[in-house]
Amino acid sequence: NHSAPIAARVTVSKDESRDFMAVFPDVVRDLTGVTRAYNCNDAANWFARVLQYNVPRGKKNRGILCVLTYKNLVPADQITPESLKLAHYLGWCVEMLQSFFIMSDDVMDNSTTRRGQLCWHRVEGVGLTAINDTLMVENAMFAVLKKHFSHLDCYVDLMELFHEISFITTCGQTLDQINSHRKVSEFTMDNYKSIVYNKTAYYTFYLPFALAMHLAGFKDAEAFRQSKTILLEMGHFFQVQDDFLDCFGNPDVTGKIGTDIQDNKCSWLAVVAMQRANAEQKQIMMDCYGQEDPIKVNRIKDLYKELSLPTTYATFEEESYNMIKTHIQQTSRGVPHQSFLQILNKIYRRDS
Amino acid sequence: NHSAPIAARVTVSKDESRDFMAVFPDVVRDLTGVTRAYNCNDAANWFARVLQYNVPRGKKNRGILCVLTYKNLVPADQITPESLKLAHYLGWCVEMLQSFFIMSDDVMDNSTTRRGQLCWHRVEGVGLTAINDTLMVENAMFAVLKKHFSHLDCYVDLMELFHEISFITTCGQTLDQINSHRKVSEFTMDNYKSIVYNKTAYYTFYLPFALAMHLAGFKDAEAFRQSKTILLEMGHFFQVQDDFLDCFGNPDVTGKIGTDIQDNKCSWLAVVAMQRANAEQKQIMMDCYGQEDPIKVNRIKDLYKELSLPTTYATFEEESYNMIKTHIQQTSRGVPHQSFLQILNKIYRRDS
Ligand SMILES: [Mg+2]
Ligand SMILES: [Mg+2]
Ligand SMILES: [Mg+2]
Ligand SMILES: [Mg+2]
Ligand SMILES: [Mg+2]
Ligand SMILES: [Mg+2]
Repeated sequence: NHSAPIAARVTVSKDESRDFMAVFPDVVRDLTGVTRAYNCNDAANWFARVLQYNVPRGKKNRGILCVLTYKNLVPADQITPESLKLAHYLGWCVEMLQSFFIMSDDVMDNSTTRRGQLCWHRVEGVGLTAINDTLMVENAMFAVLKKHFSHLDCYVDLMELFHEISFITTCGQTLDQINSHRKVSEFTMDNYKSIVYNKTAYYTFYLPFALAMHLAGFKDAEAFRQSKTILLEMGHFFQVQDDFLDCFGNPDVTGKIGTDIQDNKCSWLAVVAMQRANAEQKQIMMDCYGQEDPIKVNRIKDLYKELSLPTTYATFEEESYNMIKTHIQQTSRGVPHQSFLQILNKIYRRDS
Repeated sequence: NHSAPIAARVTVSKDESRDFMAVFPDVVRDLTGVTRAYNCNDAANWFARVLQYNVPRGKKNRGILCVLTYKNLVPADQITPESLKLAHYLGWCVEMLQSFFIMSDDVMDNSTTRRGQLCWHRVEGVGLTAINDTLMVENAMFAVLKKHFSHLDCYVDLMELFHEISFITTCGQTLDQINSHRKVSEFTMDNYKSIVYNKTAYYTFYLPFALAMHLAGFKDAEAFRQSKTILLEMGHFFQVQDDFLDCFGNPDVTGKIGTDIQDNKCSWLAVVAMQRANAEQKQIMMDCYGQEDPIKVNRIKDLYKELSLPTTYATFEEESYNMIKTHIQQTSRGVPHQSFLQILNKIYRRDS
C-alpha cells in the first residue's frame, strides 16, 4: 500500500517548499493546454480539477528531494534559472507518479481519506472514473517531459527511468497484494525485502535522485549502480521504520492509526516475530494476525513486546544507519557523499 | 466505453492471425524475465496469468493492422525476418495498449463479460487488483519497446507516440464520461466527434498505422499529418457504424446486445435524432433516453425509425466512403494509397 512512508517525513524548509509550489501552476497550464489542443475542452477542465485535488498535496518531499539533489550535484555557479526550473519540473513529474499510484492504491484498498481530505474516488461525482483519472495523470507526466526535456541529451534516459520505476512499483504492489493473502507462517524476510524495494524504495528514493543525476549530466552507469544500492538500503530502512511506527508510533505524532496487523500485512514486525517465536507464540500469530477483533490485535501487540521487538528495532536502526554511512563512504564514482548524507541525516531517529 | 468497435471487424486471414499469435509467447517470456530480474518471482507468475488472460483475446485486428501496414509500406525484397518480427512486436504493443484500456474500462463500467469470457476483475481472486494489473500491462509495453527497439532511430518517436495516444485516449474516456451524464438535449455533433476521435479513432486506426510508418522509416511530418486526417475520418465512420449497429444490428451477427440508449450514451443516433426532432419528438427523447425501462428504450427506437435514421445512416455511409476515398487520392506525401484503400474496403458495408 502507499501509506505515507517515512520518506514523507524528511523535513524540507519553507522556502524550498514555496519555491517548488510556485512552479505547479505552470505544470497545470501546460497540461490543460495539451488537452485543449485535442479538442477536449471539457476534459481539460476536468483534468485541471484532478491535478489540483491530487498532485500538490502532502509534503511533496519526493519532488523536493529531486530539486535538492540537483542543487547538491551541480556547482552553484553552473546552476541557471532555466536549469533550476527544469529540476522543479522533474520534481513535479515525481509527484505526478506518486499521485497516480496513490490514487489507484486508494481505489484498490477502498480507502476513505488521504492527506487530510477525502480520497479522490470518494468525492461526489468521481467514483470509479478515478481510474481513468490516474491514467491521465500518469500519461500527462510524459507530456511534461516532452515539452521541457525533449531537446536534452538525457531525454531518453528520463523516459526510460519513469517507465522502469513505474513498472517496478506495479510489481511491488502485486507482491504486496499476494503476500497480504498469505498465512503469516509463510512470511519471509526475503519476500519482505522484495516488497519494500519494489513497492516503495525505487520510486521514493532512487527515482528522484537518479532523475537529478541525469539532469546534472551524469553518464557513468557505475555511478547510478552504486547510488541505487545506497538509496534502496535507505528505502528499506524507512519502510521498516514505517512498519514499526504503524504499531508503536504515537498517533498524535504520526497523524494516523495503523492497521497493518488487521490487514495481514507482511510487515517487518510480523516477519521478525515469526523468526523469534517459539511454537506456542507462532500459534498466537496464526490465530490472531490479520483479523479485525481488537482483542486479537492487542494480543499481537503484546506478543511483539514479549519478543522485545522494540529493542530489536532500536538496534536495527543503529546498525542500519552505520552500515549505510559506511556504504556511502565507500562509493567512489563521482556522486558527492554529501548528497546522500543530507538525506540520511534527515530521516533517522524520527518519530513521525 | 471500449465495446468492440467496427475496427474489430476488419477481416484478417487465418495465416496472418496465426503468424501474429506465434510471437506472443516471446512477448510473455520477455516480460516475465524483466519481472524476475527485479526479484519478483511471485509477481512474474501473476503477471504471466494477467497477460495470457487479457492480451491475446479478441480478433487482434489493431495489432495485425500494424503488421499488414508495415508489409504494405516496405517493398517485399527489403523486408527481413528480423524487421518483420519487429512489426509483430509493435503489433503486440498495440494489443497491450488496447488491453489495458479495456481492462480499466470494464472496471469503471462494472462490466461482466468481454470477448466471450468473464472480465478480468470478475475472475475469482482478482477484483480491484485488476487496476494494478492494467498498470503492469501498460508499463510492460515500454519494456518491450526498450528491449527490441532502443537501438533504432525511431525509438523516441515510438515512445512518444504511445505516450501521446495513451493520453488522448484517456481524454476521450473523460469526454465520454462527462457526456453520458449530460441531458440528451445537450448532446452536440461537435462533442460527438471529439469523443470518437479521442476515445477510439486515434488508438484504433492512427496508432497502428503510424507505428508501421515509423518502423518503415518515414520521417516526413506532413506524411504523418495527412495519414492522420484520413485515419481519423475512418475511425469516425467506424464509430458511427458501431453506434448504428448497437441499436439496429442483428445481435446474432454482431454478437452483442446494445445498451447505448439505456447508458445515456452520446451516440451518433441520439445526436442526429435531436437535430431532426420537432418539439414533441425532442420531449420524447428527454423523457425516455438514458433509462432502463424497456418500454422507453423501444419508444426511442421507434422514434429513430420515425425520423428515418436508417436511411440517413445509409446515405452517410455512402458519402463517407466516397469522401475518404477522395481524400486518399489527394494525399501526396509518400504513403501508398493502397495502404489506406485496403483498410477502407475491408470495413465498409459490414453488418457485424
Ligand atoms: Mg493503501
Ligand atoms: Mg495497497
Ligand atoms: Mg505503513
Ligand atoms: Mg465499457
Ligand atoms: Mg466506458
Ligand atoms: Mg458501441
